[in-house]
Amino acid sequence: MTFAARLRSVLAGSGRLCVGIDPHDGLLDVWGLPRNADGVREFGLRTVDAAAGRAGVVKPQVAFFERYGSAGYAALETVIATARAAGLFVIADVKRGDIGSTIDAYAAAWLSPGSPLEADAMTAVAYQGLGSLTGALSLAGEAGKGVILVTATSNPEAIATQTAVRSDGRTVARALVDDVRGLPGTGALVIGATVELADYGLAPDSFGDVPILAPGFGAQGAHLGDLARVFGPAAGQVAVHMSRELLGAGPDGLPDAIDRVQDELRSLSNGQGA
Amino acid sequence: MTFAARLRSVLAGSGRLCVGIDPHDGLLDVWGLPRNADGVREFGLRTVDAAAGRAGVVKPQVAFFERYGSAGYAALETVIATARAAGLFVIADVKRGDIGSTIDAYAAAWLSPGSPLEADAMTAVAYQGLGSLTGALSLAGEAGKGVILVTATSNPEAIATQTAVRSDGRTVARALVDDVRGLPGTGALVIGATVELADYGLAPDSFGDVPILAPGFGAQGAHLGDLARVFGPAAGQVAVHMSRELLGAGPDGLPDAIDRVQDELRSLSNGQGA
Repeated sequence: MTFAARLRSVLAGSGRLCVGIDPHDGLLDVWGLPRNADGVREFGLRTVDAAAGRAGVVKPQVAFFERYGSAGYAALETVIATARAAGLFVIADVKRGDIGSTIDAYAAAWLSPGSPLEADAMTAVAYQGLGSLTGALSLAGEAGKGVILVTATSNPEAIATQTAVRSDGRTVARALVDDVRGLPGTGALVIGATVELADYGLAPDSFGDVPILAPGFGAQGAHLGDLARVFGPAAGQVAVHMSRELLGAGPDGLPDAIDRVQDELRSLSNGQGA
Repeated sequence: MTFAARLRSVLAGSGRLCVGIDPHDGLLDVWGLPRNADGVREFGLRTVDAAAGRAGVVKPQVAFFERYGSAGYAALETVIATARAAGLFVIADVKRGDIGSTIDAYAAAWLSPGSPLEADAMTAVAYQGLGSLTGALSLAGEAGKGVILVTATSNPEAIATQTAVRSDGRTVARALVDDVRGLPGTGALVIGATVELADYGLAPDSFGDVPILAPGFGAQGAHLGDLARVFGPAAGQVAVHMSRELLGAGPDGLPDAIDRVQDELRSLSNGQGA
């Protein structure tokens, strides 16, 4: 089973919410946890505990663990392994990008079976071209894992680069979407839920059956009710990423916050085909 | 003293070579070291020992340490701290990119004084726009450290993205160069020594006095003698990155390999104004 098929199956079976694990300083304070490696470990483990049985996908933001060096990475190893043991699909949000033996090493770190940081997918950036990630995509394919390409993001500073037009007439984002569609089930896309697809030369039918990871809900401005309008026929394959909107509820409020979003997503699916 | 001024001073005083610390599997084998965290630690420490007193700048490629999870990061902490204690300027080659509190956390990890991974500069990717890195650039400025932006790279798969034209008529790479020139000494650029600057809307006089980190020498096709032709008046501010060309000499041959390149760079500077 390819990564793309596996992720689609998780979203269909366990709901479309992807729970972010983002222990930044402000949230550690809200949760009453220390700003150190112990704090991010505890934050991660409590989030995993709340997500297990309520959602299918979690996404640790690796920066908040890297912040504490090797001790932070040891905490991250524990959080990822605990999540996978609980049956959660783990996306390591690392946004790595490089070429040759370097990208091979990143892929080995995050995707190779038995690695201490083994996840189910990693996010990546293709500023050096999707071809620069060939080694990572190949290793992902062998392991049934995936690479999720940052494509069209919600932050306003991004649009000038992502809508730039290549010599073949396609925008940077559009070419990436086309190329990922051509992959054998090893790729997915990060598409912000607040972007105007047309600005990027994209439309709701541009994505084929490639899974989409969509940030931008809640504080960033998108509403769950927008899913069908923005993504059209692709809405069902969108993993809806939320982080601070859920985590801000604190450890005690988190389980209910997850349940509420999953309920809303289910009612949208039933009511609007999204 | 800003990061840019500090790096220019190091290059002028200690020679323009930047010694890569790239313990990939093939090189670990050549060096007779195990493919594990102990192996990459030993590889890094021996490279630092060879570089100290012979070069001013080292650049650990973080992927090869991350490959071994938290144990690899503990090795990296030792290597970076040893290099800095030996007076070397350390560029953490991490190519991180993200927005908001996430990029702040990356910058805190690699640039904040006292962090276990504290380096003098980090590489970064601006696929989400240079504005997305504001937090990292700000933290770098406070600490006298720098962010080195991946701009125009040597790998052929990169050119379609990096030469794409934005709505303001500039290429993605050109806009990045212009923006980094506008920073208060906190930025530098990665420009591959094999690129044709004109393809990117760039010329040797595009860079002002912004420091440049140039990979692409040796196995990738560029020659030291090309420096003046490619970079013109900016050649003196180029940190010449070499990795496998030096490291392939093995631990015993490495000191002489470094000396040879530094001698050649010095004779080029004296003879050709490069």
